[in-house]
Amino acid sequence: MKIGIFDSGIGGLTVFKEISKRLPSFEIIYLGDTARLPYGIKSKKTVDKYSENNLKFLRSLGCQVIVIACNTASSYSTGLLKKKFRIPIFDVLSSGVTASLKTDSNRIGIIGTSSTIESKTYQKSLKRNSKSTKIFSKACPIFVPIIEQGLSEESYSKIIIKENLELFKRNKVQVLILGCTHYPLIKKHIQKFLGKKVILIDSAEEISKSLLAYLKAHHPKEFTKDKRKRQIYVTDQSSYFEVAIKKIFKNLKIKIKLVDIK
Amino acid sequence: MKIGIFDSGIGGLTVFKEISKRLPSFEIIYLGDTARLPYGIKSKKTVDKYSENNLKFLRSLGCQVIVIACNTASSYSTGLLKKKFRIPIFDVLSSGVTASLKTDSNRIGIIGTSSTIESKTYQKSLKRNSKSTKIFSKACPIFVPIIEQGLSEESYSKIIIKENLELFKRNKVQVLILGCTHYPLIKKHIQKFLGKKVILIDSAEEISKSLLAYLKAHHPKEFTKDKRKRQIYVTDQSSYFEVAIKKIFKNLKIKIKLVDIK
Repeated sequence: MKIGIFDSGIGGLTVFKEISKRLPSFEIIYLGDTARLPYGIKSKKTVDKYSENNLKFLRSLGCQVIVIACNTASSYSTGLLKKKFRIPIFDVLSSGVTASLKTDSNRIGIIGTSSTIESKTYQKSLKRNSKSTKIFSKACPIFVPIIEQGLSEESYSKIIIKENLELFKRNKVQVLILGCTHYPLIKKHIQKFLGKKVILIDSAEEISKSLLAYLKAHHPKEFTKDKRKRQIYVTDQSSYFEVAIKKIFKNLKIKIKLVDIK
Repeated sequence: MKIGIFDSGIGGLTVFKEISKRLPSFEIIYLGDTARLPYGIKSKKTVDKYSENNLKFLRSLGCQVIVIACNTASSYSTGLLKKKFRIPIFDVLSSGVTASLKTDSNRIGIIGTSSTIESKTYQKSLKRNSKSTKIFSKACPIFVPIIEQGLSEESYSKIIIKENLELFKRNKVQVLILGCTHYPLIKKHIQKFLGKKVILIDSAEEISKSLLAYLKAHHPKEFTKDKRKRQIYVTDQSSYFEVAIKKIFKNLKIKIKLVDIK
């Protein structure tokens, strides 16, 4: 059984790591579209095209279940991909929404890239499921370069976090959805600023739980098998990404392979 | 006479504006590869491919002179493009190097994206022309999102500028090359931090001067013609770019056209 995960870049490795940990007996293939990243500032049309290319590549390697680790691709392209490809597709967005609704809080915050927030997919999905919930959202696109460039411990990063998240503190949100795969990497800083009582929804954890539940129900025999291999593909390899991966995922021991997808 | 300018995104519009001002009687076409930006963190191989596609597109519209407004593409791909296409090609990097050597300073600093700095093209080019010059360089990739997201007036941006440029102050550089098309947009902040005596080399200005000199020598008749049209193409149009363009280029009145290049 092969699970394919794709993301615009390397942030989705948070999802890859979490799924790898929980599903040792499944073969897992990750694709980071580093040649075309970031998706978060691009249009729906462009993100749709890239997402479809990514899925086709993972299908060509035999993946039977797909995980969209990228929030932008989740909010823009899940519908399209589900229509075009008749295989199980899990996306970080739905998992994040489900998890935050389970908390029964009525003041929910969402942070993400510009596209994720402006697409209003999170907001609409929450509203559809819980009409009385007050929703607060803010695009925090500056967080991604801060994380990728290993700057989250710099003194100015504290100020950046404060200025971006003040809105949620002022409005007393009880739950904050981390709507970008990079954000779990600064979870402790976010938690520190918002206080311990605020529940942070980490897409990597939530989607792993959804996937685990699905596979237990539909493919229970796969869990009894031996440990299976993991593969990581990227569409571009540069020193920037190499340094970023080392900074973020200190103990990632899998050789990363370069692939050209059209 | 048509001049084609390309950049990875919208930063090169600083170059477009400067050239437009100085060469009213020339037709000017700008291409911003917003679907694949940024180049600054990607590999030479990938940047070469994108640059070649951009140049081919501008050639297909009849451009006879090409300006590479992107520093990363300049440092990685100028050699390749000059070999493949036998037309005059101007690149921001060479213009910046020439201008900084003219100052006769022997302590020169360079800032740019990760790829530009790591490629060492600026450093090598300076060294080749002036062996005694001391060169100091630093990648400042965080400046681009700060500028594009209109955050340069935020209090933390001052701290970010200070922490990134301290090296140049400490080493008493006399000239600083702004090796990224976005950087002229925070020139006043950089100048304020480094002090008035430090000469800032602005690629947009320098490449316009080089181009003007070339055209005066080779196509003097073109200068007597009427005002000609300008066109701006991008490979992706999203609300992020629309907002960024409005923030950065307040009075840009040209309709931006979307184009799909392969």
